[in-house]
Amino acid sequence: MTPLFLNTPAQYAELVNSVDTVLFDCDGVLYLGENLIENAKNLLEMLRSSGKKVIFVTNNSTKSRKDLKKTFDGHGLEASIEECFGSAYASAVYLSEVLKFPKDKKVYVFGHEGLEEELDEVGISHCGGSDPEDRTFTPPLNYADYRPDPSVGAVLCGADHYINLKKITKAVTYLHNPECKLILTNPDATFPIGDGIFPASGAMSAGIVYAAKQTPVVIGKPSKTMMDAVVAHHHIDPARTLMIGDNLHTDIEFGINSGIRTLLVMTGVTTYDQIYGPNPSPVVPTYVIERAGDLVRMSKE
Amino acid sequence: MTPLFLNTPAQYAELVNSVDTVLFDCDGVLYLGENLIENAKNLLEMLRSSGKKVIFVTNNSTKSRKDLKKTFDGHGLEASIEECFGSAYASAVYLSEVLKFPKDKKVYVFGHEGLEEELDEVGISHCGGSDPEDRTFTPPLNYADYRPDPSVGAVLCGADHYINLKKITKAVTYLHNPECKLILTNPDATFPIGDGIFPASGAMSAGIVYAAKQTPVVIGKPSKTMMDAVVAHHHIDPARTLMIGDNLHTDIEFGINSGIRTLLVMTGVTTYDQIYGPNPSPVVPTYVIERAGDLVRMSKE
Repeated sequence: MTPLFLNTPAQYAELVNSVDTVLFDCDGVLYLGENLIENAKNLLEMLRSSGKKVIFVTNNSTKSRKDLKKTFDGHGLEASIEECFGSAYASAVYLSEVLKFPKDKKVYVFGHEGLEEELDEVGISHCGGSDPEDRTFTPPLNYADYRPDPSVGAVLCGADHYINLKKITKAVTYLHNPECKLILTNPDATFPIGDGIFPASGAMSAGIVYAAKQTPVVIGKPSKTMMDAVVAHHHIDPARTLMIGDNLHTDIEFGINSGIRTLLVMTGVTTYDQIYGPNPSPVVPTYVIERAGDLVRMSKE
Repeated sequence: MTPLFLNTPAQYAELVNSVDTVLFDCDGVLYLGENLIENAKNLLEMLRSSGKKVIFVTNNSTKSRKDLKKTFDGHGLEASIEECFGSAYASAVYLSEVLKFPKDKKVYVFGHEGLEEELDEVGISHCGGSDPEDRTFTPPLNYADYRPDPSVGAVLCGADHYINLKKITKAVTYLHNPECKLILTNPDATFPIGDGIFPASGAMSAGIVYAAKQTPVVIGKPSKTMMDAVVAHHHIDPARTLMIGDNLHTDIEFGINSGIRTLLVMTGVTTYDQIYGPNPSPVVPTYVIERAGDLVRMSKE
């Protein structure tokens, strides 16, 4: 099945009029590295002034919503904290609203301050994370120091640039208790910078997953769990929601897994060949558009 | 299929007479932690005096053959360096004799001195490993510092207690070159100490594997690659070789994958219920014996 390529003002209008909520991936959609995508700012203003809800859905697990808003500020784009939905906050919402995490338990954090900040926001106790004690380690490991702790009800793993054997061993020790849940903010293996490929959150937590012998709950895109958290928090109607993204394997699969319509933009990591070439990707968006900002040229009714 | 339980001197004699080489797992077979298994010392002496070849096949990747011999010395068991075959040495043999690793390339080592020592033994250049530069890291990562290096022909991953994001990022950067091979000394996820479960080699390298998007060559048990290295080096006849071990998923699967007979001992991690219970393991050894040392009570011809 070939997705519909949108390139007329009438098509833009039909799509925008059919939705109440637009979920945006950010990098590759609204900006690319340092540069704004054409009409990105106008698009956000047009959607808000038409009464649409705008939510920024990103897998970055080191940033709280406050940090994400600062990124938008830095690009000269308006965004409220309420509109930001990173995988750190989604994980906190999942623990609090979906899992009803018990108040007398705590979460062992494999991750950074942004993740801790979001757990604080929803009132969930935590340990590990940015604790300097866990951020420093010199072998050998004294195995006798690592004991199960029944007060740890979950291990929450995001990107942790301080990854070391102490952190991994603590997490694996807690997870040896089958009642301790394993949650990943997001499964991304790598991310590109320039022509390089660098290890992302999923690569940092892969050792914990491998040793834990427990299937993790994965929060971030493309997991539907991210959408469950968005719906639990924002009470949106999936039938009138659109996901806009540049990545087939995170954004578009996320929309497909969540049962909502998807719009692929060509300003990020996906090439036209992957969609319209002789061997197209099996991941098929509902619509394709050259750039998200094109939607502002919709025809007026 | 239920495996044959050996418990008569005639059965012991028949088995011993049918083999020229005995491959031993060590912990759980010859000793358990600090304690020698009954008749372990006598068994090794009996086999050697009958002209059998004895090889100690262990997944421990941090120890060179010299280090393994020291472990045997510490238990009061005789062992020559030639009889020791750890996954560190097996990896070096694999690179040198099976892969014919080019002399003008080097191996990036994610592991300890024992692994470097074995690469030195077979004349393969290496970097990383115990280099103090790689063993220390404090975020943030300066991504511009990480560049591909075409002189790195393989990344070899064992247990590395100094795991940090610098090491992972270097490995992933080298592996971005599809000609750079990814090799794991062994796939073990965890190992037990007392009532605890701790992350093993496979857990430490899992992040590199996850980010590399390249199927690794796995050397250690249960991979047949370990047997290919043993055969390449020792020129043994698989039809007259027996693997003795206590672990169904490493030792016994290793024997099965390698097409040789296996003898499970009940002095380690496996319970009788897993073999003769109502829901037996799908991994079925050829023979079962209470303890390896029982073989010394074989009938004389």
